[in-house]
Amino acid sequence: MDNIRYTKGIHNLKSVDGKGGDAVIESLDDISPDLGKYIIEFAFGDIYSRPILSLQEREMITIVSLLTAGGCEPQLEVHINGALNTGIDPIKIVESFLQCLPYTGFPRVLNAIFTAKKVFKERNLTV
Amino acid sequence: MDNIRYTKGIHNLKSVDGKGGDAVIESLDDISPDLGKYIIEFAFGDIYSRPILSLQEREMITIVSLLTAGGCEPQLEVHINGALNTGIDPIKIVESFLQCLPYTGFPRVLNAIFTAKKVFKERNLTV
Amino acid sequence: MDNIRYTKGIHNLKSVDGKGGDAVIESLDDISPDLGKYIIEFAFGDIYSRPILSLQEREMITIVSLLTAGGCEPQLEVHINGALNTGIDPIKIVESFLQCLPYTGFPRVLNAIFTAKKVFKERNLTV
Amino acid sequence: MDNIRYTKGIHNLKSVDGKGGDAVIESLDDISPDLGKYIIEFAFGDIYSRPILSLQEREMITIVSLLTAGGCEPQLEVHINGALNTGIDPIKIVESFLQCLPYTGFPRVLNAIFTAKKVFKERNLTV
Amino acid sequence: MDNIRYTKGIHNLKSVDGKGGDAVIESLDDISPDLGKYIIEFAFGDIYSRPILSLQEREMITIVSLLTAGGCEPQLEVHINGALNTGIDPIKIVESFLQCLPYTGFPRVLNAIFTAKKVFKERNLTV
Amino acid sequence: MDNIRYTKGIHNLKSVDGKGGDAVIESLDDISPDLGKYIIEFAFGDIYSRPILSLQEREMITIVSLLTAGGCEPQLEVHINGALNTGIDPIKIVESFLQCLPYTGFPRVLNAIFTAKKVFKERNLTV
Repeated sequence: MDNIRYTKGIHNLKSVDGKGGDAVIESLDDISPDLGKYIIEFAFGDIYSRPILSLQEREMITIVSLLTAGGCEPQLEVHINGALNTGIDPIKIVESFLQCLPYTGFPRVLNAIFTAKKVFKERNLTV
Repeated sequence: MDNIRYTKGIHNLKSVDGKGGDAVIESLDDISPDLGKYIIEFAFGDIYSRPILSLQEREMITIVSLLTAGGCEPQLEVHINGALNTGIDPIKIVESFLQCLPYTGFPRVLNAIFTAKKVFKERNLTV
Repeated sequence: MDNIRYTKGIHNLKSVDGKGGDAVIESLDDISPDLGKYIIEFAFGDIYSRPILSLQEREMITIVSLLTAGGCEPQLEVHINGALNTGIDPIKIVESFLQCLPYTGFPRVLNAIFTAKKVFKERNLTV
Repeated sequence: MDNIRYTKGIHNLKSVDGKGGDAVIESLDDISPDLGKYIIEFAFGDIYSRPILSLQEREMITIVSLLTAGGCEPQLEVHINGALNTGIDPIKIVESFLQCLPYTGFPRVLNAIFTAKKVFKERNLTV
Repeated sequence: MDNIRYTKGIHNLKSVDGKGGDAVIESLDDISPDLGKYIIEFAFGDIYSRPILSLQEREMITIVSLLTAGGCEPQLEVHINGALNTGIDPIKIVESFLQCLPYTGFPRVLNAIFTAKKVFKERNLTV
Repeated sequence: MDNIRYTKGIHNLKSVDGKGGDAVIESLDDISPDLGKYIIEFAFGDIYSRPILSLQEREMITIVSLLTAGGCEPQLEVHINGALNTGIDPIKIVESFLQCLPYTGFPRVLNAIFTAKKVFKERNLTV
């Protein structure tokens, strides 16, 4: 059965997204607990526990992908917090967003920067 | 004037994209040489020469952004080559694409993996 | 003239979107009544009155397409209501969104689920 | 362990995508067999074996989502075949694509219709 | 009935897209003639015959929208021809694509420029 | 050095976006002043000062591209104001959005129209 995937997933979810991740899972309880289960088992159990990339590298990839997709500001907020939780410096988050400029243009980067600005302010961080 | 940005851009373009980058710039000569100039000055001169992230980190961000945007297979091919040119291991490229699975779904990841497969084959690389 | 298309469109709009649809059309009165007319004539007059698919099937397709496009939460809210108005069970709406997971990834599905949660709450529905 | 998910996934993959699905999995063998494993376990093992929606309904949702995402023609080809394999009438596939017109516009629908045309021709089907 | 919309649509389609437009409509005959009818009646009959914007302005808007959407190269090819058919200078098409750089990034602009390069070559045009 | 690009950029930014543009640049001061600098130097210094297209034509292209990309409502609001600042009639803005209907579908156009409605109301404009 899937106990191992679930246990690994909960562990990674707590390491990365902390209470922001918990809040997403809880908010699914009354509409689709299975969706919460898949986030834990597949995203955090299967993928985040893979070798070769560090959690920091995984979070950098995640926030770049969310920036590029557009319309994912709630998830971007959770994972900017996640990136900070894994020890990434705020200035490195900003720099990763600037690297997307030639590939996504300014609007997507601006939306991500303003989401980061909000998160940094909540955590009393400066760049 | 912009000589410095252009010179830095040419240097970075050669370090990263090698002859794949040259080919793109040359193919613009008879339709929009200014577009080639902006790629060199803005993308490679301004952005790639910024501090805080290494060229390897910049290429990882670039290929993740291109995967997520979709429909950018020609640019993805150039930058998978670019990622390899900066010394990133093929297995790390594949792993970065797998990290996108929860955020972009399977089709975008499959398209990127098949582009990587083509590039790795051309360069006689195995994962 | 287009009376028939308009009449069919109004009929389908009322069957499907109810007062949510009316509100959209009315809100266009002072900026682009022609846009409202095209929604009625083309979307609801031409397309929704076609054979082969039921209104329920059409609404399922619509909410899946809006989920995938991203950034269409206002329209998704109208059409989750529309799906319910045609008699689709809330659990089937949730299930349709989960089916998109492998193809769109988690963020688009989460955005759609939270829109459904809001609509279900307004209508006192449980899944 | 995950034997059950894998076994269910293989069963569903064969029911739905037939040899088109096998070909995708095989083509991943030398670059990312884990990606093939996730397609089987997560997409076809977890999601396709869920209750409430039939395989036919799941395939309809899948092809609508792929049409809307854009740039997923290879996956759309596999899943138009999948839709036919589950017994969906070709005319219903075409009709589902037309239902997307008001939400995605003509270009995405045209790309999907031409992919369907190719698949129908290969299978000697007429609409 | 819709004779007027259809007649206006055919007229506009011929003015704008010429034989490229005809080819698209014909290629739909054996799979979805209704889709061809909607292109003629809605896109070219309703929208292209509206006042306030010239056909040239409409074609400029169309190619910018297709560039931005991505994955619409076949439609972009038809409408770059359409833009030229309405008398727009090739250099103005290229310039419109460059104006998108800050908003869409380089890859979408490169894809559009290479499509324009192909069309200009077929028509023996230089910029 | 880049004084000329910056000076031209500030001039164009003020001509086009007025205080809306200033507000964006200022809001970047404490998180990424370099991003503000690139908006001024690259977007407004390099691109907006190019020949062949008028500022009005550039703003029309910009708002069409932002509509099509989706999820860019903050930037769309700035540039609908920008379009008005360059002297474009409100009715022409609305008409440009309607021209996108066949290519992007209704939801993107509705989102843009409601953003325009908000801007027109703030400026006491009627269409």
